[in-house]
Amino acid sequence: MLSKSKMKFIRSLELKKRRREEHAFMAEGGKTVRELLGRFHCRLLAATPEFFARTPAPEADECLQVTPDELLKASLLCTPQEVLAVFDIPDLPLDEDAPRRSLCLALDGVQDPGNLGTIVRLADWFGIEHVYASPDTADVFNPKAVQATMGAIARVQVHYAPLGALLDRLRDVPVYGTFLDGRNIYHEELSGNGLIVMGNEGKGISQEVAEKVSRRLFVPNYPPGRDTSESLNVAVATAVVCAEFRRRMS
Amino acid sequence: MLSKSKMKFIRSLELKKRRREEHAFMAEGGKTVRELLGRFHCRLLAATPEFFARTPAPEADECLQVTPDELLKASLLCTPQEVLAVFDIPDLPLDEDAPRRSLCLALDGVQDPGNLGTIVRLADWFGIEHVYASPDTADVFNPKAVQATMGAIARVQVHYAPLGALLDRLRDVPVYGTFLDGRNIYHEELSGNGLIVMGNEGKGISQEVAEKVSRRLFVPNYPPGRDTSESLNVAVATAVVCAEFRRRMS
Repeated sequence: MLSKSKMKFIRSLELKKRRREEHAFMAEGGKTVRELLGRFHCRLLAATPEFFARTPAPEADECLQVTPDELLKASLLCTPQEVLAVFDIPDLPLDEDAPRRSLCLALDGVQDPGNLGTIVRLADWFGIEHVYASPDTADVFNPKAVQATMGAIARVQVHYAPLGALLDRLRDVPVYGTFLDGRNIYHEELSGNGLIVMGNEGKGISQEVAEKVSRRLFVPNYPPGRDTSESLNVAVATAVVCAEFRRRMS
Repeated sequence: MLSKSKMKFIRSLELKKRRREEHAFMAEGGKTVRELLGRFHCRLLAATPEFFARTPAPEADECLQVTPDELLKASLLCTPQEVLAVFDIPDLPLDEDAPRRSLCLALDGVQDPGNLGTIVRLADWFGIEHVYASPDTADVFNPKAVQATMGAIARVQVHYAPLGALLDRLRDVPVYGTFLDGRNIYHEELSGNGLIVMGNEGKGISQEVAEKVSRRLFVPNYPPGRDTSESLNVAVATAVVCAEFRRRMS
């Protein structure tokens, strides 16, 4: 059973402020929770008998068997799940050297937690291990973001840092970004390391960061020059760009 | 001002049943509403003075100037917008011939309205004008789906039809689908017409439809064979596949 105080604690993790104070976040759903178990320290796991039948001894400080109804009451996603768990937010050292060795992403003000989580999930698919996010980017430990990562947050490190200063320290690496007036990505040379900058859903890449992008790219629409939607969803654009980088390397 | 009865009517359009009965749907936000005006018949438009300043004479049966507070109360998205509008659902003839002439999408049980709307938006970007959706796919006139299309719903036609029977009638066109055991898309021949089938978020393509897919594709992860996320978000996978088809044709 979930006591009132535990219920209250779990639901408080909806707020970023509380997550930072508690150094904890909440994950829901069998697939996501199973991916995170063993990678992140789990403080509390509440699940239905069905979950425990498939995952007999989850590595957690405290395991509680609960009803689907209790889970739904504690849920921050408001969709029925078989499990929810509270994990420690890991202490990640800011690895600024990764873009010299490998391809990394930089997110400049991505606002929607679902978009952010989807980007982390596709980064994992395309073997991108480090994502740098501007401080005004959504919090990757937001429950909706965690959900959208589908567990990829266990493998992809998201570092929050002011991007302008970061790019100043990384002048020796190629910095890519997509712009409506950028160059056709299919005709450009693409490297196996560096940073791909993706911008805010409405405003794109901020001026400060845009000035530090050395290679301006464009994902062509079809047929070229046709009057279509003005842009792609940011997660979709990130996917097309990452896929093209990896296609060249395969 | 929005009368109580209008407010009630607008909010009732959250339900698919009511949308079908009324033959109407609701759109929110300046960009989306402006894209739809003039393409779909607008019954009612409620907006702030700021919207009317930028769009002086919107083509609508009834225009109401309202406060941001009233808009928020009527909103189905619960995010502040400057405008909302009620449009007629268009009567689209089911064009079954389009996959013979051009590249089209088929969605087999895509559940999330946000994913569906994002797919419609990217279809527009990649010049795909027809999307066939199985009856259990989310409703494209769901407010969240409309929002995610960012207006592309004005240019892309979404037809609901049982996919098994449709594919039986389209045996002469190439039918592509993505599967974890499909063939590397970058090594396959891709055509300029036909259907690309995308499946449900959790279960993928249903067995009935999978049997009718003649060309099984796979978007390779990186590095090949690495243990990563099991899959990509469906909108993200659709984007990578469509981009690759169009790259070949450009």
